[in-house]
Amino acid sequence: MTYCVGMLVKDGLAMIADTRTNAGVDNIAVYKKLFVTEVPGERVIAIATAGNLSVTQTALNRLKDGIKLPDSDGPETLETAPTLFRAVQLVGHAIKTVRIDFEDGLEAQSVSMGATVLLGGQIRGGALGLYLIYAEGNAIQCGPDTPYLQVGELKYGKPILDRALSTDTPLVEAIKLGLISFDSTLRSNLGVGLPFDMITIRPDALTGAQRRIGADDPYFRELGALWSEAIANAHRAMPAPPWEDA
Amino acid sequence: MTYCVGMLVKDGLAMIADTRTNAGVDNIAVYKKLFVTEVPGERVIAIATAGNLSVTQTALNRLKDGIKLPDSDGPETLETAPTLFRAVQLVGHAIKTVRIDFEDGLEAQSVSMGATVLLGGQIRGGALGLYLIYAEGNAIQCGPDTPYLQVGELKYGKPILDRALSTDTPLVEAIKLGLISFDSTLRSNLGVGLPFDMITIRPDALTGAQRRIGADDPYFRELGALWSEAIANAHRAMPAPPWEDA
Repeated sequence: MTYCVGMLVKDGLAMIADTRTNAGVDNIAVYKKLFVTEVPGERVIAIATAGNLSVTQTALNRLKDGIKLPDSDGPETLETAPTLFRAVQLVGHAIKTVRIDFEDGLEAQSVSMGATVLLGGQIRGGALGLYLIYAEGNAIQCGPDTPYLQVGELKYGKPILDRALSTDTPLVEAIKLGLISFDSTLRSNLGVGLPFDMITIRPDALTGAQRRIGADDPYFRELGALWSEAIANAHRAMPAPPWEDA
Repeated sequence: MTYCVGMLVKDGLAMIADTRTNAGVDNIAVYKKLFVTEVPGERVIAIATAGNLSVTQTALNRLKDGIKLPDSDGPETLETAPTLFRAVQLVGHAIKTVRIDFEDGLEAQSVSMGATVLLGGQIRGGALGLYLIYAEGNAIQCGPDTPYLQVGELKYGKPILDRALSTDTPLVEAIKLGLISFDSTLRSNLGVGLPFDMITIRPDALTGAQRRIGADDPYFRELGALWSEAIANAHRAMPAPPWEDA
């Protein structure tokens, strides 16, 4: 399992990915799932992956070598894609073809070939954007009505985003909410684990700030503890049910 | 889909069940999923069901007629079960046999026969208890380390319970937390819907207080709005990340 979230608010984009992979509960490992392609001042593209690790890793390796789309004259990469949407098409095509190449063998072994990818960033001339790409190569774009996208184990961490994140939320608040969302998920699902990789990108900066948050990160530990305390105080402050029998 | 939760704290038991059933998103209906057997002063047993409605309804109807367990001389019902654990065995046996009777036909149609049941209450001479019964007839008992059990669409509403509910939580606070857990689930899953049915049972009261919470319930509406507000205030009060780039 995996949990990745991307949050696109007016003053920036933040993407967070965990690093746990597992095949059953008795075979876990740490693998980076956030990958950044950056040409400072020209483009920054971050990719966070969930699902079958062999599918996502193979797709990203093929992408490095260059993907030739049906309407293209030659192979393209994340370094050459002229727009963010073209980058999304390249990633989608890469995942789809990997899946097709291996699905007969893997599905015969009942191995899930599912893979989903978040792609966010900006290429000069275009806007900061965020997309979710499915295993079939199709994609959806993040918009201001629901200013986040998730892949992987998304349910535990969704309520906090639904309640508190809007397109007007400052990026620093979005980061807090994203980390709280991860903290909630960590507590409930062994398939999601520290360390986390994070990137934040400001509009038109065309560069991103990357950070790894480990189990010993004092800010993340403090945030989790303070949040539990705040929740406890908040529910005690809620009015009591007006029913006599309660 | 369905969401039901049972919370067993030192000063009582609360069980809440939604009432939405659906076959796809274009076929939804309201069906009661919380059923109470009560002989005031002698026993109160509440059952909340999730999963295939035909399985749970048929099991409960067979239970009314009486279930003959292998070690029993005659049919037993929730009215005659001498202990809560015996009631759990009766329900487990009822679900298991319904499943066995129909699974060949239904599984051929790819219809899920899954069904899970929460059973909580007290029978004179025993303690207030709460169990989760699986479709195979086996069951687990709620204890003070994790003082709640859920069935159905449980993930969205679990983080709030994990953070805030303990065996020492007063029952009135547990009810607030349970309703917040439902509010979070409602916002994210169309398969969970109002009205909710709720029962609260105090230790040794041997009777329960039942209530239906509809879409127009002023307390539930206020609680959802105040909770969103409290969450927004709480995350703004969290310390900002100490990283320069945030």
